[in-house]
Amino acid sequence: MRKQSTLLAIGIVLSLWAGQAWSTAQEPIQPVEPAIVKDPAKVELGKKLFFDPRLSRSGAISCNSCHNLAMGGSDNLKASIGHKWQQGGINSPTVLNSSLNIAQFWDGRAKDLREQAGGPIENPMEMASTHELAVQVLNSIPGYRAEFKQVFGKDSITIGEVTSALAAFEETLVTPNSRFDQWLKGDKKALTVRELGGYELFKNSGCVACHNGVAVGGNSFQKMGLVTPYVTENKAEGRAAVTGKDADRFNFKVPTLRNVALTYPYFHDGEAATLTQAVDVMGRLQLGRTFTPDENAQIVAFLKTLTGDQPVIQYPVLPPSEDDTPRPEPFVK
Amino acid sequence: MRKQSTLLAIGIVLSLWAGQAWSTAQEPIQPVEPAIVKDPAKVELGKKLFFDPRLSRSGAISCNSCHNLAMGGSDNLKASIGHKWQQGGINSPTVLNSSLNIAQFWDGRAKDLREQAGGPIENPMEMASTHELAVQVLNSIPGYRAEFKQVFGKDSITIGEVTSALAAFEETLVTPNSRFDQWLKGDKKALTVRELGGYELFKNSGCVACHNGVAVGGNSFQKMGLVTPYVTENKAEGRAAVTGKDADRFNFKVPTLRNVALTYPYFHDGEAATLTQAVDVMGRLQLGRTFTPDENAQIVAFLKTLTGDQPVIQYPVLPPSEDDTPRPEPFVK
Repeated sequence: MRKQSTLLAIGIVLSLWAGQAWSTAQEPIQPVEPAIVKDPAKVELGKKLFFDPRLSRSGAISCNSCHNLAMGGSDNLKASIGHKWQQGGINSPTVLNSSLNIAQFWDGRAKDLREQAGGPIENPMEMASTHELAVQVLNSIPGYRAEFKQVFGKDSITIGEVTSALAAFEETLVTPNSRFDQWLKGDKKALTVRELGGYELFKNSGCVACHNGVAVGGNSFQKMGLVTPYVTENKAEGRAAVTGKDADRFNFKVPTLRNVALTYPYFHDGEAATLTQAVDVMGRLQLGRTFTPDENAQIVAFLKTLTGDQPVIQYPVLPPSEDDTPRPEPFVK
Repeated sequence: MRKQSTLLAIGIVLSLWAGQAWSTAQEPIQPVEPAIVKDPAKVELGKKLFFDPRLSRSGAISCNSCHNLAMGGSDNLKASIGHKWQQGGINSPTVLNSSLNIAQFWDGRAKDLREQAGGPIENPMEMASTHELAVQVLNSIPGYRAEFKQVFGKDSITIGEVTSALAAFEETLVTPNSRFDQWLKGDKKALTVRELGGYELFKNSGCVACHNGVAVGGNSFQKMGLVTPYVTENKAEGRAAVTGKDADRFNFKVPTLRNVALTYPYFHDGEAATLTQAVDVMGRLQLGRTFTPDENAQIVAFLKTLTGDQPVIQYPVLPPSEDDTPRPEPFVK
């Protein structure tokens, strides 16, 4: 009897150690599922628009410039480069899995992807066009007219259809099959003991309070600098810019941690260059906890398991402009 | 007898009219052949480098920025946008079929694609990096180290391997199977009567004296403004900048006309916005001939048959930077 209970105890310890005792069904993070494409022609059109720099005044900036699908759907810059090399006011969030967000932009001022897509096109700091000019450009291009007609059944293109097609493409940009999701789905060998230890720390320390759900974030607004104020030269006000309420100052949408190893630098001001720095700042400012270097490294090891399969994109061939297409104006004063 | 010879005469006229009497073997233009990929791993590596903005100081400009494979391998701008929005000094030529060129750049200062590829990386007006920095960036990225090792069998990356891989990718960027090439290969229905009429004009007027061979150009240097001087504010000197000889002033590499419908605007200064304008200027300045609107339109119709199959590119997923990778500096003074 003594021997049996000792073995039993060792068994429980071992299975806890290997994470066997967890039920993934009860985990606070759920796997990303592959995209279901309902309207392939609309998605294909949206892809062309996503990569088309003619939506910008300069003819040089596309959606993909700041949300580069070769680089985790981001530009890997602290602040993006806009029209005439203007410095963007906030770090470009990844477009990957953005359909899972509660709202779009760091301050959530757009309710969905479609509403978001219209923003940068007419933002003078970004693509610096207007909806009128962008639509005029597209309407002048026979290849686009034909595709819009096929997708929307109308002869003339409007901005609503442009943003609708862009959103349809962006909805396909999900990243299933990360090692963490393989583990969630039952492959207990998908993670190392150290990565699982990082996940345990991530849960037990409270990171998961905000970074949860399918996107491991993206589903709430939270104050940056909850326990200790966050010091930055960045002027973004966060949610307060939308609600007008002082209480919402510095409330930002919690970023997704999916593919976070690809979406450096971190935070709305891009001031954390590495995951190690980001985990350290989050621990101290949001949780009042200073992670030891080993704890930090374990959490980083876990975060790196959140990189999923990147979307497979055939680079589009864009329909050429016609003689009467408004020309880009990159250098006009 | 009378009737037979009349029928014969009609037959000759008809067959001339339909282009049946031409032997394509004697044509001054030859078809583009598909690329033969000898080293797929090297081509794949070159593709990643071609799309990687980390080869630039800002982290935002890649080879593809000015030689966009979605837009005929060009940027469709008069002058390209370089580091900090500097205005480029000359129109970016297409990268498509560039392996067929006698030399690279408008003035032919690089003897081949490999030599060319090193230029923009360290040009302060363009990507504004240095070969040392670019190589340091790549050497810091484990994904690149592994791929270079696989392709070149060495543990450390040098600029020579970077440009060699870029050139290997660019050599695959040929565009076979244009309608004109289908016609050259014997499909006499591939062109309309009007397009064939344009081709006849193209040959008979002397365009073909410079625009010949597989690339329909790219194989000689010729004076811009041969009959009548070309007036431009553009400061490029042409071949004289390479040879130092006054006689070479305004001698430029004849651009390829392959995919010319996609590579607007035209000329080294990008001042011709449309094919109609380009044909008109070429006729008057190079040939001393003013094409009628109908002749011009016929030649344009022919030129549009030179658009070939665009390269099928799976957009790359770039290996992420590491904590010690030198960070981009887009806004540093």
